Amino acid sequence: MHCAVIGAGIIGLSIGWELARSGYQVTVIDPAPATGATHAAAGMLAAVTEFHYQERELLHLSVPAAAAWPQWAQAVETASGRSTGFEACGTLVVAADAADRADLSVLAEAQRAVGLGIGELGTAAAREIEPLLAPRLAGAFHAPADARTDPRRTAEALVAALESEPGVAFYRQRATAVVQGERGPTVQTVSADGELAEIEADEVIVATGTGRIGEHGAPGEGLTGLPAILRLPVRPVFGDVLRLRPTATAPRPAGSTVRALVSGQRVYILPRRDGEVIVGATEREDDQAGVSVEGVHRLLRDALRVMPALAHYELVELTARARPSTPDHLPLLGRIGPGLIAATGFHRHGVLLSVAAAAAVRTLLAPAPEATAPRSPPTILDPTHLASFDPWRFS
Amino acid sequence: MHCAVIGAGIIGLSIGWELARSGYQVTVIDPAPATGATHAAAGMLAAVTEFHYQERELLHLSVPAAAAWPQWAQAVETASGRSTGFEACGTLVVAADAADRADLSVLAEAQRAVGLGIGELGTAAAREIEPLLAPRLAGAFHAPADARTDPRRTAEALVAALESEPGVAFYRQRATAVVQGERGPTVQTVSADGELAEIEADEVIVATGTGRIGEHGAPGEGLTGLPAILRLPVRPVFGDVLRLRPTATAPRPAGSTVRALVSGQRVYILPRRDGEVIVGATEREDDQAGVSVEGVHRLLRDALRVMPALAHYELVELTARARPSTPDHLPLLGRIGPGLIAATGFHRHGVLLSVAAAAAVRTLLAPAPEATAPRSPPTILDPTHLASFDPWRFS
Repeated sequence: MHCAVIGAGIIGLSIGWELARSGYQVTVIDPAPATGATHAAAGMLAAVTEFHYQERELLHLSVPAAAAWPQWAQAVETASGRSTGFEACGTLVVAADAADRADLSVLAEAQRAVGLGIGELGTAAAREIEPLLAPRLAGAFHAPADARTDPRRTAEALVAALESEPGVAFYRQRATAVVQGERGPTVQTVSADGELAEIEADEVIVATGTGRIGEHGAPGEGLTGLPAILRLPVRPVFGDVLRLRPTATAPRPAGSTVRALVSGQRVYILPRRDGEVIVGATEREDDQAGVSVEGVHRLLRDALRVMPALAHYELVELTARARPSTPDHLPLLGRIGPGLIAATGFHRHGVLLSVAAAAAVRTLLAPAPEATAPRSPPTILDPTHLASFDPWRFS
Repeated sequence: MHCAVIGAGIIGLSIGWELARSGYQVTVIDPAPATGATHAAAGMLAAVTEFHYQERELLHLSVPAAAAWPQWAQAVETASGRSTGFEACGTLVVAADAADRADLSVLAEAQRAVGLGIGELGTAAAREIEPLLAPRLAGAFHAPADARTDPRRTAEALVAALESEPGVAFYRQRATAVVQGERGPTVQTVSADGELAEIEADEVIVATGTGRIGEHGAPGEGLTGLPAILRLPVRPVFGDVLRLRPTATAPRPAGSTVRALVSGQRVYILPRRDGEVIVGATEREDDQAGVSVEGVHRLLRDALRVMPALAHYELVELTARARPSTPDHLPLLGRIGPGLIAATGFHRHGVLLSVAAAAAVRTLLAPAPEATAPRSPPTILDPTHLASFDPWRFS
């Protein structure tokens, strides 16, 4: 069975590799793999501290995904011979003022109510875990189970793992249309030079993130040919992300991911082992693809409030990318037609949920006939939970 | 007469072109022209508002330089066929709070006392000139004579003007030593591939900015061969400079350069005609060549305090470069030996004073014998005023 995956962000790459190691023939189609949201993402694998009110259904994906990540990262590293940057690190959540602490306290209670592991710690104990925290904070919580990965390295490792599979083809071209034929769907592509190609498949998985999905039959940049009455309301929520490096004399954080609420605004500080510190992220719906002056100012201000030593760091990279978001902040994950599956709309959770997306797509497919001995472990998802993510729910 | 200019920042390029159009044979030596401080500089030509206490001698250079700039820019544009970005724009100087206004008021008085044209304006009148100024400011002053240029375009135009001169050679190599021979000095150079060359000259002009000057005879990266007892105490003062671009819907400033004092910290906002807005600049002596987190935060905070609409701009470039500074903040400009002239240490004033540096070097040289009809206008400098800038004053 041949599966064509349109889009090679972390979602498409993960689906492609999961299918390849489960015995399917796989073609991945993307003119520039891992250059969208994956390129900006910090890589928090934070089923606990990413949980917010009204996103309860997400737990059906996020909790099994978080549980599966250590093994998944290990498998990707073994297959590719590369590091993913996966680290079990825990998250400290700190409050700048009393109102922030009250907010975080209620949120932590909601997180505990759904079974997530987070406890109030006190600021002195938090500073024992992370001595670079500002002395004047109003509260601190700890979610020891949260982990993180490095999305850029993970994507590189997934590309390497995919390319080492015999049944995998990589098309670095843009998919323009999915055409339904008698024998199944065909993906039409165009190269940078304007060369056209057609890829016949048994199943097509649309993992385009914020890549535009065109109106049915309409010409233009977007992917056409999806069912005419289907609405996939993915909108871009832009995020600014900063990358810092320590100067020779600057102190380095101990290693926990730090999330903070500073006068009601969220900021995270994610220190990597090599010294890089990622500070993010804004959530802008202003349709401005460039890095926002206001966004950078706000992130620096709040990060310095929480970890003053970052003042002495070098600001080496500013990145803005769009997250693919939906009206209910839940992904669009499921079958959209014969031979057609959607896996997009993962909003802020794409890196964490990439594993769940891969597992979900596998459960939606007929078992690969040629898979006499698949190397993939049993699926991590209960398929009955996928109903909440039905891509048809807005149509 | 053959002059070799070591260093092709805006100082070396201006000297080279002034000498070339005055009838000298010129060789300019730099592995990467205009990539140092010139690349970061905003290009304020602000003899008035750059004047500070204890820098009175600088007026002997800055006032004639400011007066000469319009004609100089015109001549460079004519010779190169390129725009320099020169604009007569005036400077608004604004105070964020009452203490800032008191500071600026005393400074304006000192500026007027030495004959510079600056007057208190009031914030309402300032907002008539620049409607994007924040409503809540404590004071405003106006220096209508200040101008500006675009250092990157000016340097490109100077390179083009130089390359169009028949008597000019451009060596994109690194100068390693000046060797005194019987017939005059020789500059030794090395290319990126390690190829060595020697350039004989009648006069060598050292315009290396913060490019390292090595100890006499010592090996290493710096330029060697200068007089052994000469001290040229140039130290790097790093500056962070931000470049912003308006989004499609963001309002654009009217056009004056805006300088501000915000709780005692200086910031400038320089809007170019093409929409680019430059925000600068920190002054760091921390020996960190990279862009400073603290610096960017401070500049954004203070610029947004003065011109809130910049929040909606895109942050397109962060640049940090070192200014070549001296203990008394005056340049090192004069003869340092037979056939040897120094022109460096211009600190924050390099772009404005490039014209003065060019004129000064011309006055230090014997007239070019082949210059039957030099195309350069009479020198703008009174040579008796060069004594304050004697490069030997620290030796």
